[in-house]
This record gives sequence, structure tokens and C-alpha cells, in this order.
Amino acid sequence: MPQRRVLPLTPIGEEPRLRADAVRNRARLLAAAARLADEHGVEHLTMDAVASAAEVGKGTVFRRFGDRIGLLQALLDHVEERFQSGFLEGEPPLGPGATARERLGAFGPAALRHDAAHRELYLAAEGKPERRYLTPSLRVRHTHLAMLLRSAGVQATGGDPELLAHTLLSFVDSALTAHLTSQRGLPLERLEAGWTDLVDRLIG
Amino acid sequence: MPQRRVLPLTPIGEEPRLRADAVRNRARLLAAAARLADEHGVEHLTMDAVASAAEVGKGTVFRRFGDRIGLLQALLDHVEERFQSGFLEGEPPLGPGATARERLGAFGPAALRHDAAHRELYLAAEGKPERRYLTPSLRVRHTHLAMLLRSAGVQATGGDPELLAHTLLSFVDSALTAHLTSQRGLPLERLEAGWTDLVDRLIG
Repeated sequence: MPQRRVLPLTPIGEEPRLRADAVRNRARLLAAAARLADEHGVEHLTMDAVASAAEVGKGTVFRRFGDRIGLLQALLDHVEERFQSGFLEGEPPLGPGATARERLGAFGPAALRHDAAHRELYLAAEGKPERRYLTPSLRVRHTHLAMLLRSAGVQATGGDPELLAHTLLSFVDSALTAHLTSQRGLPLERLEAGWTDLVDRLIG
Repeated sequence: MPQRRVLPLTPIGEEPRLRADAVRNRARLLAAAARLADEHGVEHLTMDAVASAAEVGKGTVFRRFGDRIGLLQALLDHVEERFQSGFLEGEPPLGPGATARERLGAFGPAALRHDAAHRELYLAAEGKPERRYLTPSLRVRHTHLAMLLRSAGVQATGGDPELLAHTLLSFVDSALTAHLTSQRGLPLERLEAGWTDLVDRLIG
């Protein structure tokens, strides 16, 4: 009896088949990378180590991710997807079904806790300043917060949702929260209270 | 007639004399670096180029600044000092003599214009995420904004001046303003209006 294989794409012709292989290949490399990061820490995650763990050539890893930052950002996107599903389609108050104010209020603590659990990865995957705000994960967060600020009516009081969304995003920036919690010793609860206060001040 | 030399330290014994030499030496290296950055752009500013321009050995430049990021941050501190003198002891509304609200209102546009004039340097001197918030220039800005927020009375309404100061600082972060103006095409005036609006929302 032949082994059953579930393919995400119908294998008509060569190209879709190759794409399905590429998707599996990428997922396998990311799974190996995630395992290595968990076991040895993000700072020891190299292209070589991922190639060995996934039993492929080093060239395959480079072709797939470009460089180490590319690998870290792919891993971060993978981790970020879980957080995204929470705020895009999860339970209220973070997900749909709650008011914009409630969803804004829930976003900060959720982002702070999520980032704290993956702090090393978020810091290591930070790209150069010119590329930072172009990363898909930040753009999705920004679009979401700007949408909620619009729903909460900040435009009626002269607010600029695009800029105010950046203000909220910056509050949960990994480098800043790492500084505040590790270097200045602020408890996460103080940051969460600060978020609630900030949302109140911005929405009015 | 002997040449008159004004020394910042009285030359009694060897040590102060050496320190005065070190101060002059450092100033000479920074002047050479500033000239090179103006003429050829920050991206071409190397330790080698500074050594050649200042007619010293490469080792001297490394001893003085550690590495290229150290050199860029020293250059940034030098540029930042001019901006600092504006908000610490300059004319109102940026300097003393205006109300806290007026000074907060003036800080953003001044920071945005200052940073835009030195954008390349601010982006190039950005250190690793773990060190970013420990740089002296950011700490001075933060202390100043937290002081103004306290004077404006945000604590009376439950605000946390330390966190709200970071919210204001993040608004004028070089990587963010570079993204907004260069990559998204927002005019500086929109950011300035956004700052005024943000100060109003934070102070209430």
C-alpha cells in the first residue's frame, strides 16, 4: 500500500509539485532551527547548525533564507503567526467581538508577554534600521493598531491613526522592553499598566 | 613671544598634562571624522580614513574609540551636544523660561529637524539593541522629557513619566522617522503635527 501524502497544492505538472516540496523543505528547516534555538539559545543558531540538524547542505539553507538574519526573521515570522492569529481571529478582548478600545487595551499586555517569551529571538532578528519597519510582522501589527485607532474614532479629535499606531507599537518594541525590564529592573506589570494608561490618553 | 595656549586643565605634574593632550587629541580626531563624513558620507567613514586624515597611526584611532561604532557614537555625541545645549539652556520655547507644555511642544520639531540634518550619522551610529538605550545622548533626552512630563503634572492623572518619556522619545526615533519620511513619503510637517497632537494627548 503506497504511503499517503497530503500536499497543500494539487500536483498537476511539475511546478506546483516543486512548490509543495519547497514549502515542506522550508518548514523542515524552520522546525530544525526552532528546535536548535530552544535547546542551545538563539545566539548559537548558525546556518551550519541548521544544515546539520536538517541533514541538508549548507547551500540549501543559504538559498532558502539568504543569511542568518533572514533565517532569524523567518523563525520570528513563524513565532509571530501564533500571536497574529490571536489578535486577528482569536477570542475577545484581543480578537474580534470586543470594542476597539478593549482590543487596544488587550493588545499591549499580549504583545509584552509574547515578546518576553521570545525576547532573544526578537532582539537577534532585528534588522538594520533601514529595513526594520518593512518586516512583515511589524507591518501587520501596525495595520491592525491603525485600524483599531480609526474604529475608536481618534480622527474625530484630530489624531493621525498611522502615527498613533507607531506610538503604540514603539511602546512594545523589543529593544525598549528589554532595556526597561532587564537593565532598569521595571516589572512587566508596570509596563502593562503603562500601556493601559497610554491607550486611555491616546483615545481620550 | 611664546605662543599662548589655553589648556582646559592646569598642567601641574604629568597626569593632568597628559589628560589635556588626550582631550585635544580626541577633538582633533573627531574634527577629522566630521570633515570626512561631510565630504564623503558617513558610510565611507572608516578608522583608516580618520587615521590618515588626522595623520596618526590606525592604532591611535582604535585606542581612542574602540571600533567604528564607537567612533560614530563619539561623533554623534559631538553633534548631539549642540542639540542638548538648545533644550537644556537655549532660548524658550525649547529652553528654560517657557512652560513645560510649551517646551514639550517645541522638543519634537527641534529633534525631528536636528535628526533629519544628521540622519545618516544617527542611523549608522545605532548600536546593538542591548546597548541602544544606554547611549548618553538618549539618556539625556529621556531624563529631560521625563522632567518636563513631571512638571506638566502627568503623575496627577496616573501617568508614569518614565514610560511616557519613552513614548515621546520613540516618536522621534531615527529609524522610525527615516522609514516614515523616506519609505512612506510622509512630509516632516505631518510628523511635527503628530508630535503636537501626541503631547496634547499625553498631557491632557
